[in-house]
Amino acid sequence: MITPKLLDKHSFSMLMDFCELFMANGYFDNAGAGEQVYFDMFFRKIPDNGGFAIMAGTEQFAEYIEGLGFSSGDIEYLAGMGNFSPEFLRYLENFRFSGDIWAVPEGTPVFPGEPIVTVRATAVDAQLIETMLLSYVNYQSLVATKANRVVRAASGHEVLEIGSRRAHGPQSALLGARAAYIGGCEATACVLAAQKYDIPLMETMSHAWVQLFDSELEAFRAYARKYPDNCSLIVDTYNVLGSGIPNAIQAFREEVVPRGYRPKSIRIDSGDIAYITKKGRKMLDQAGFLDCRIIASNSLDEYVIRDMLMQGAKADIFGVGERLITAASDPVFPGVYKLCAVERGGRIIPKIKLSENTSKITLPGFKCLWRLFDRDTGKAIADVITLFDEIIDDSREYELFDPEHTWKRKKVGNFVARRLHKQIFKAGECVAEFPQTSEVREYCRAQIDTLWEEVLRFENPHKYYVDYSQRLWDLRHDMIREHS
Amino acid sequence: MITPKLLDKHSFSMLMDFCELFMANGYFDNAGAGEQVYFDMFFRKIPDNGGFAIMAGTEQFAEYIEGLGFSSGDIEYLAGMGNFSPEFLRYLENFRFSGDIWAVPEGTPVFPGEPIVTVRATAVDAQLIETMLLSYVNYQSLVATKANRVVRAASGHEVLEIGSRRAHGPQSALLGARAAYIGGCEATACVLAAQKYDIPLMETMSHAWVQLFDSELEAFRAYARKYPDNCSLIVDTYNVLGSGIPNAIQAFREEVVPRGYRPKSIRIDSGDIAYITKKGRKMLDQAGFLDCRIIASNSLDEYVIRDMLMQGAKADIFGVGERLITAASDPVFPGVYKLCAVERGGRIIPKIKLSENTSKITLPGFKCLWRLFDRDTGKAIADVITLFDEIIDDSREYELFDPEHTWKRKKVGNFVARRLHKQIFKAGECVAEFPQTSEVREYCRAQIDTLWEEVLRFENPHKYYVDYSQRLWDLRHDMIREHS
Repeated sequence: MITPKLLDKHSFSMLMDFCELFMANGYFDNAGAGEQVYFDMFFRKIPDNGGFAIMAGTEQFAEYIEGLGFSSGDIEYLAGMGNFSPEFLRYLENFRFSGDIWAVPEGTPVFPGEPIVTVRATAVDAQLIETMLLSYVNYQSLVATKANRVVRAASGHEVLEIGSRRAHGPQSALLGARAAYIGGCEATACVLAAQKYDIPLMETMSHAWVQLFDSELEAFRAYARKYPDNCSLIVDTYNVLGSGIPNAIQAFREEVVPRGYRPKSIRIDSGDIAYITKKGRKMLDQAGFLDCRIIASNSLDEYVIRDMLMQGAKADIFGVGERLITAASDPVFPGVYKLCAVERGGRIIPKIKLSENTSKITLPGFKCLWRLFDRDTGKAIADVITLFDEIIDDSREYELFDPEHTWKRKKVGNFVARRLHKQIFKAGECVAEFPQTSEVREYCRAQIDTLWEEVLRFENPHKYYVDYSQRLWDLRHDMIREHS
Repeated sequence: MITPKLLDKHSFSMLMDFCELFMANGYFDNAGAGEQVYFDMFFRKIPDNGGFAIMAGTEQFAEYIEGLGFSSGDIEYLAGMGNFSPEFLRYLENFRFSGDIWAVPEGTPVFPGEPIVTVRATAVDAQLIETMLLSYVNYQSLVATKANRVVRAASGHEVLEIGSRRAHGPQSALLGARAAYIGGCEATACVLAAQKYDIPLMETMSHAWVQLFDSELEAFRAYARKYPDNCSLIVDTYNVLGSGIPNAIQAFREEVVPRGYRPKSIRIDSGDIAYITKKGRKMLDQAGFLDCRIIASNSLDEYVIRDMLMQGAKADIFGVGERLITAASDPVFPGVYKLCAVERGGRIIPKIKLSENTSKITLPGFKCLWRLFDRDTGKAIADVITLFDEIIDDSREYELFDPEHTWKRKKVGNFVARRLHKQIFKAGECVAEFPQTSEVREYCRAQIDTLWEEVLRFENPHKYYVDYSQRLWDLRHDMIREHS
C-alpha cells in the first residue's frame, strides 16, 4: 500500500531567496537569534484594478511552518558554500519556528496597504519564512480574487474551474483549484483538489472519447450506455449544430431516457458560443430536454462571459480554465513583506522604509486591523489600521479621516468594530483551527455581501476606505519627517 | 535526520481532470486496457507572438510517470463516487504506466503544430497522464521561452531570476527557476532550485537588513564586515544618490578593501533605473570601484530592459522577478494533447479532430519530427513532420512545400536532417538519460544559435517553416474531405 502524502513535510524548507540566509546568518552572528522583530505582509495594488482582493493561502503556509526544518543534507549543502558561520548552521540544524503570527482569515476581502499577515519572531525566523509566505498567499489570493470576478460576471450561472492543464505546474493546479473554490466557483475538474480539499467535482467529456470511435453517434451511445445517470456529451468535435447536438439528442433518447434517467449536459468548447448556445438551447428544448444543461468553455474570463451574457448566450455553466488559474489578465499578486518594528529592551520600536515613490513608504509599528460595519445594513463602512494597543470602542462615535487628505473627515456611529486578525501561531505552535474549504467559501461569500455594490464594480470601482488611527498617522508622519 | 524529498513519488497521481477517469473507465469497460492509441502534445501559438518556444519540463514529467500509482485511499475515494466499475478500480490499484513516450529534448526550440511529445499507450494509460504532462511541459516551456526573451533583451548583461515570491506557489517557484536557467538566466535567487538542479545562486541583500539598524551606514558596515568577500549592498532603502551609494562606498572603503577584498555590487530596486544607474556608475568609478557591479531590479521584463539599455542604463545585472516567473505579458502556454491514431489488428489507423476554426484541425497519424540544417552555415532551414516510417534522406535534394499554400515549393540540398524525437519511455520503462540542467541550458543556447536572426526578432518575427511530408499532407487532406 502506498501512503499518499502530497508533500514531504520538509519539502519546501529550502525554498527561499538566498538573501534570507545571508541576512539570517548576519543577524544571528551579530545579535544572536534573540531579538524580536515585526514584519507585515501587505499588497499595494489590486489585480485587474478591482475594488478588493480576497485573502487565501494561509492554511498551506501554516502547514509549511509546522514542517519547517533542515536536513543534514541541507546543512551540508549550505556549509559547502563557505558563507555561513558554523554556529548559524548548528542553529539551523535544530531549527523550529518559534514566533507569533497573526493573519486575516482566508476568504476575507482585503485592501491595499493592510497588514494581512503580521509576524513577530526573531529576525532569523522572520526572514527564513518570507519567501514561502509570499509564494503561498500571493498565489491563492490572486486566484481567489480572479475567481470571484468571474463568478460575479457569470451572475448566477455556475462557474466550473477547469484550468489544471495550463496552471503553472501541478501544485499550482491544486492550490489554484482550492483558491478558485474559495472565490466562488461551484466545482473543479481537478480530482486531487477535490479529494484533498473536499471540493465538488464536475465531469466534462473531452474530444478524445469521440475520436476513438468510428462515428460521433457511436461514441455518444457508448458513453450514454456507460454513464446514463451522468451523461454529459461534448458536441463540437466535428460540427456542433450539424452533427454534435443532433447526435447527442439521439443518444439521449436511445440510451439515457429508456434507462430512466435524464441527460445531464452538453459541452461546447469552440466556435461562437453566444450564437451556438442559443441555437443549441432551442434544439434541446424542441427535443424535450429542457432540463439538459449547456456547458460553455474555451478561453473564458469575466470579460468574455459578461459579453456573452449580454448577447443572450444560453449557457448554464461556464467552464473556466487557463485565464482563471493563471489570472491571465493580471497574473501577479503584488504582496510584499516589510519590517515594521523591532523590540529592544522590552520596547517596540517602529521602523519605516522610505522611498522616492511615496506610495512605497511603509506603515511603521506593530498594528491591528479593524473593520467597521453599519449596525443596520450590515455593510462595511471602512477599515481602520491602529497601533496594536488601541481599541476602537464601537459604543461611541468614531472619527474617520483620509490618511492622504486629512481634511476629509467623517464621524460614524451605530457601527460594530471587528478585529480582522486572528492569531495562527503562538511561540511557534499553531493555534488556529482552519475551517473546511467549503466554510471558507461560504464565509467569503457572506463577507463580500457586506461590501457596497460600488466596490464590486469591474470598471473604476469605488475605493474602499482604509484609514489610520490618529496615533498611527502621527507616528508615520513624524518618522517620515525625521528621515527626510 | 530528515531525508529531504521534494515530493512523495505518488503525490500527483490523482492530479488529473475528472474526465480522464470517466473516459479511462469507459475505454476499459468497453475494450479492456489492451488497445494502443497515439496522442500528440503540441501547441498552437507562441506566447508574446515570439518566433519560437523552448521545450522544457520533460524530466519532471518522467519522474511523475515513474512514480505514478494509486493508494488504497485513492481507490476508496474513487469507489465512493459510484461512477466507476469494480474491474476498473482493481486495474488502477495495480496500475503502472506501460506505454511508450517520445519527446523533443528539453532546451530545443519548438514551433506551433509540432508533436513535441508523442505517447503510444492503452487508451487508459494515455488518458490518465494527460493533465500532468500538460501541466509540467506547458509551465516550464512558458518560462524557458520567456526567460530567453529577457536574456536576449539584456544583450550580454547577466539576468538573475528572482521571482520566487510572486510565482504561482512554491513548486512553481522551483520549476520556474529551473526553466529560467534553461532559457538562459545566469543564476537564481531560489535556494531550493539551486540545490536540487545545481543552478548558480546569487545573493542580493533586501531592505529589511538596512531597516534593522539605526542607520544605513551602520547596516552597510555590519554587512560588509560579515561578508567582505561577497559584499552586495542594496542602496535604495532611503535615498539612492543622496545616501545609499555614498554610504555603500564608505562601507566598501572601511570594511571591504582593508580586508583585501573588492566590493561585489550594489542593487537598485526602485526609481528611474536608467538615470540612477548612470549617476551611480560615475560615483562608483570616481571612488575607484570600477569593478563594482550594478544590479537593477523592480518589475523588469524584456521590454523594460530593452528600453533601459537604449537609454544608456549602466546596469551590469538585471534581477528579473514576477514578470519572468509568471510570464506576465502572456502567462499561458497553450499546449494541448490530442488523439492522432489508434492501433487495430496491428494496423495504425490515423484519427483527426475537425473544427470550425481551421487552425484547430489536428494532424493525423503516428508522426516523426525532423529538423533540416544547412551543412555550410549550420543554420536550421525548416522542420518537417512526416509519418513515422518515412526517412528524410539528406544525401539527396528534398522538396519542401508550404502546407497551406502548396504552390510555394522549394528544393533544398546540402543539408543534414536530424530527428528531434527521443524515446523516453519504452513499455513503461524510462529509457532516457536526462542531462544536467546546465547541459540543457548549453544545448538550448547552441540550438537557438542555429535559428536565423529573423526568427529571434521580438516584433513580427519571421515564421519558421514547419512543413509536412507529401504523404502526411495527402493523408490529412483526404481525412478532412472524408469527414466534411
